[in-house]
Amino acid sequence: MASGWFYLSCLLLGSLGSMCILFTIYWMQYWRGGFAWNGSIYMFNWHPVLMVAGMVVFYGGASLVYRLPQSWVGPKLPWKLLHAALHLMAFILTVVGLVAVFTFHNHGKIANLYSLHSWLGITAVFLFACQWCLGFAVFLLPWASMWLRSLLKPIHVFFGAAILSLSIASVISGINEKLFFSLKNTTRPYNSLPSEAVFANSTGMLVVAFGLLVLYILLASSWKRPAPGILTDRQLLLQPRPGSRPFPVTYMPVTGRQPYESW
Amino acid sequence: MASGWFYLSCLLLGSLGSMCILFTIYWMQYWRGGFAWNGSIYMFNWHPVLMVAGMVVFYGGASLVYRLPQSWVGPKLPWKLLHAALHLMAFILTVVGLVAVFTFHNHGKIANLYSLHSWLGITAVFLFACQWCLGFAVFLLPWASMWLRSLLKPIHVFFGAAILSLSIASVISGINEKLFFSLKNTTRPYNSLPSEAVFANSTGMLVVAFGLLVLYILLASSWKRPAPGILTDRQLLLQPRPGSRPFPVTYMPVTGRQPYESW
Repeated sequence: MASGWFYLSCLLLGSLGSMCILFTIYWMQYWRGGFAWNGSIYMFNWHPVLMVAGMVVFYGGASLVYRLPQSWVGPKLPWKLLHAALHLMAFILTVVGLVAVFTFHNHGKIANLYSLHSWLGITAVFLFACQWCLGFAVFLLPWASMWLRSLLKPIHVFFGAAILSLSIASVISGINEKLFFSLKNTTRPYNSLPSEAVFANSTGMLVVAFGLLVLYILLASSWKRPAPGILTDRQLLLQPRPGSRPFPVTYMPVTGRQPYESW
Repeated sequence: MASGWFYLSCLLLGSLGSMCILFTIYWMQYWRGGFAWNGSIYMFNWHPVLMVAGMVVFYGGASLVYRLPQSWVGPKLPWKLLHAALHLMAFILTVVGLVAVFTFHNHGKIANLYSLHSWLGITAVFLFACQWCLGFAVFLLPWASMWLRSLLKPIHVFFGAAILSLSIASVISGINEKLFFSLKNTTRPYNSLPSEAVFANSTGMLVVAFGLLVLYILLASSWKRPAPGILTDRQLLLQPRPGSRPFPVTYMPVTGRQPYESW
């Protein structure tokens, strides 16, 4: 049952994430004139698309690698590599998204980093970079002791969720700001709720729904990687067909957690 | 040691929360002309103060009642009443904050609820109202079974954290929006970063820091109410002085959690 809910949540997450990206692309293409890479306003249009894709959708998906029951059996290293690689992809999209907005600003002699949206956004990206480097150094390279990993894991998990929360707040303030900029001095301004405003507001609400679902899956304790030696009902689904040799683990109800699994 | 960190975090939380409210009051008083209750822009000025106070600071503080080790011994009902009463205070502040902005809009014939900030904010307030009513009906009134409470508790805790996250995103987009409104057509617009913009942006970043600290204290498993019969080092600090009768509980290391304590 827990397994069914998990995969249903993943299906919903995939749909919501795709909608977040597609809706942002559609908004920029249909109402804001599409895309270019020439320092114009059409170059700016890459910014919302790439930030939603990088800092929210790819980042959120990459965070959930260890919630897949397939990652709970066998060696952990391939899953760590996948977790790091997906986050690196998310970070690259984010950096390209930042290049788009900085180039547009510099080209049009517009000030950088003055709004609260930009302060929060750049903080989120800076924390993301620190988080990725620390994660790579401590959890992927082999030098760190188990003690150090146990100490840093809850901090790594907390900041993972915190960065996503900051990104969502930043995306919301960014969409809001963009609509105030774009829909002033028009026959149908933002406060008359033209179709673009309804569509972009809805996109923002979809981003919020996606983010909350990621945090739900991330924090629900029954969907976390169990302590070694403990097998849950979701892992049992991964057992080979009847008659073949099962995984060398024992089935136990989940009653205890390791200290560093407690987030 | 865990106890020391907890009280240090509470001290930091109290300082940050007070600064969030005081900074918002100072912003409105010093740069935006102060407060009134007459439908003017000075009535609007209550809106940011009351939303930061209600939906972030009081709400965040009220959420952490069960993290106090004093709440872990003796009857739970007084702590439930305190939790509900503090949240009710937060909700009343929020409603007065909404009355301030709706009255200002209606008085000035300005449209209500068109921006993404307002869509997200009203969603957060609506979820807060549902959360309070459900919490009151299920966890405070005596009719609900333990099974129903165990089922709903993780949902109640998750939505508690989710509503705070939505509130923070809403506050950030609101401060951003207010600065774009107030600092246009002036000699020093928002993009030239006048002192008001630096101050209000910093207030927004303080709100984010406060919110993240609340979520940290809320989610850190070693600071959660332990399962019945289990006593932690923080509770030991509450023991009466040597020679007097201790609490009728046994000291055990925390190794297991009840399913509904697992958030």
